[in-house]
Amino acid sequence: MTAPMPEPVRASLAESVNDQPHRAAVPSEFEFQVTHRDAQTKARRGWLQTPHGAVQTPVFMPVGTLGTVKGISQEELEQLGAQIILSNTYHLYLRPGEEVVRGLGGLHRFMAWNRAILTDSGGYQVFSMSALRKLTEQGVEFRSHLDGSLHHLTPERAMEIQAALGADIRMVLDECTEYPAGMVAARNSMERTLRWAGRSLVAWRKISEEGRETGPGLLFGIVQGGVFPDLRTRSAEFIRRLDFPGNAIGGLSVGETKAEMYAVLEVVDSILPEDKPRYLMGVGAPEDLVNCVLRGVDIFDCVLPTRLARHNAALTRYQRLNLVNSVYARDPQPIDPTCSCYTCQNYSRAYIRHLITAKEMLSATLISIHNLYVLINLTIDMRQAILKGRFDAFVQDFMERAKTGQ
Amino acid sequence: MTAPMPEPVRASLAESVNDQPHRAAVPSEFEFQVTHRDAQTKARRGWLQTPHGAVQTPVFMPVGTLGTVKGISQEELEQLGAQIILSNTYHLYLRPGEEVVRGLGGLHRFMAWNRAILTDSGGYQVFSMSALRKLTEQGVEFRSHLDGSLHHLTPERAMEIQAALGADIRMVLDECTEYPAGMVAARNSMERTLRWAGRSLVAWRKISEEGRETGPGLLFGIVQGGVFPDLRTRSAEFIRRLDFPGNAIGGLSVGETKAEMYAVLEVVDSILPEDKPRYLMGVGAPEDLVNCVLRGVDIFDCVLPTRLARHNAALTRYQRLNLVNSVYARDPQPIDPTCSCYTCQNYSRAYIRHLITAKEMLSATLISIHNLYVLINLTIDMRQAILKGRFDAFVQDFMERAKTGQ
Repeated sequence: MTAPMPEPVRASLAESVNDQPHRAAVPSEFEFQVTHRDAQTKARRGWLQTPHGAVQTPVFMPVGTLGTVKGISQEELEQLGAQIILSNTYHLYLRPGEEVVRGLGGLHRFMAWNRAILTDSGGYQVFSMSALRKLTEQGVEFRSHLDGSLHHLTPERAMEIQAALGADIRMVLDECTEYPAGMVAARNSMERTLRWAGRSLVAWRKISEEGRETGPGLLFGIVQGGVFPDLRTRSAEFIRRLDFPGNAIGGLSVGETKAEMYAVLEVVDSILPEDKPRYLMGVGAPEDLVNCVLRGVDIFDCVLPTRLARHNAALTRYQRLNLVNSVYARDPQPIDPTCSCYTCQNYSRAYIRHLITAKEMLSATLISIHNLYVLINLTIDMRQAILKGRFDAFVQDFMERAKTGQ
Repeated sequence: MTAPMPEPVRASLAESVNDQPHRAAVPSEFEFQVTHRDAQTKARRGWLQTPHGAVQTPVFMPVGTLGTVKGISQEELEQLGAQIILSNTYHLYLRPGEEVVRGLGGLHRFMAWNRAILTDSGGYQVFSMSALRKLTEQGVEFRSHLDGSLHHLTPERAMEIQAALGADIRMVLDECTEYPAGMVAARNSMERTLRWAGRSLVAWRKISEEGRETGPGLLFGIVQGGVFPDLRTRSAEFIRRLDFPGNAIGGLSVGETKAEMYAVLEVVDSILPEDKPRYLMGVGAPEDLVNCVLRGVDIFDCVLPTRLARHNAALTRYQRLNLVNSVYARDPQPIDPTCSCYTCQNYSRAYIRHLITAKEMLSATLISIHNLYVLINLTIDMRQAILKGRFDAFVQDFMERAKTGQ
């Protein structure tokens, strides 16, 4: 059992949320529809209309931290079939600064990406990258990891920055609970995140009403609460009441077991509204995508495919290849002979290994293209399977193959 | 006046060349035609047919040292309109090794590049990069710049390596005369290069007759002789007598003045056969291309566009921009508003500067695409001008604009 919320929290929530209509107005450019549901699992197929095109769900978002998916051009990203990418508010705020981006027409135009963009709140990076953090109810004071300069981030400021960037989906400022965390720490963190969610919502609405955003965008709430079912339940219930246009599950893939992650998803699934998109933050290994789609997740992001690529590791659905391995020195096969990506249609393992040993940039580009394709292609197959009513068979087959690695 | 060739040289030449028919058999897959000549200058327009497509001349070859043009995928290279690239024998011999490349189907297939390739002989890199060189009449002994291992390169070995790689155009092993060099050193170096040219020719023919090459290729002779007109004359006359399918001018762009370079080209132009392609090695700034096309050059290569790109400098025809400059921080213009390349059609100076300051790989890719396009586009315009009989006006206009930088 968790303790009741202490008084200051209630007051703060009342202040920020309760005197506002709870229903978050969804800009007319947006629409979300679930078109198919799997009979056996929680998997669902749908689409999210944005001013930058429709996003078919379930979807995987490549991560473009600084307004570029590392090693890939925007043309290559389009050819890969990426429908939406994630960019990081913390990084873009520090460099080049959100006002520079706004002045250049917003993030889409700045980076020449005409499809959808989601920006995170900056919270995760403040807690994981910056130094000398001072956390208060108001927000967080931190020093830049670049030059040590002092900055403040509040829920309101996170909304201002994201409005300047003009992403199609924006995230409330949250505190990502560290793992492992005790119950009290997890609860305090979760409760603060809820108060910040309310303030974020108010600020988002105000900025939108005052026309101070580069373009319209949806705001997603974030469920926190560590691995504690009680905390996740309370967090999800509160987030549901705020009625965001979309909801995210944060604080996972931070060290907990897969069983713990799945348990959290199952708790949250029964609480979050079914007619809103659900985004599982920072998760993206192939087996995670399958296991979490079947637990009702619509949207994923992860640095895994591009980060692995820069460390010479190629993904397939069922295994990983370390391409620097000398067994590939004369291997004429593509990374995956069954893959249709640009890399596999043109280049051998031997060539890519050669690029790696010669420290040529093209290795990261080619492996990134392949790795992203693997995840994007997996979501395409899952969407098809849900649509055709055979997702259960798809999952069975996937799990069987995962055991043997092919 | 230069001294007559010492006896051993004559003997060696007689041995290697004089007892063979001088005419180098040109494989039937190849053909070179000059289709248009400028009336006022030595400029010419033509095409070189290869088993990997026709190369329209004058042409600029991007440099793909290790079987990759740094920072660019082969698809991007094709989209840029590159017709032929240069790759380095020294580098590919050391890593991954020519037999690995042969085993994977040759360099075209290894790197997934179906257009033409020229390989150099390895000589230039042996003299500029490796350590502990020991030069003898037989060849050169050197230690790898990678691991210090001991290697030997002879004219015959250079032909074997290039035959394994299977490039469409191959180069005789030469000694690139250092600059500045005294007359005696330059003469000795030039004479050794001539003897090696003869041996290279014999070896190339033998390998080809014995069917020991991955694919057919032309062999180009190289004129050396530093900045001494007498030496260049003798070198060119000798190379002409060997009747290579194509000829190159080496040892320029190594520190001499532009006037010295042009003087060498003028000396050589009157001697080399008009019906063979002429390749000026290692030259590639925009003004050099114009000045050397008007002195009869057909083929160029240079690392300049991609190397500048990795150092954040963008070329235009008439100037250079250092994109890290803070004046570009909010500049919404493309690198060159008049440019039609992928980079300029999509990205601003501000975005590219952001990528540079954030140390993102994409900056080198985007600037490389632009810089290569500038040179490739310049050759397209020169070909058009020659074809339409207005090359003289093109040159006048270019020189005028070069003065003002636009």
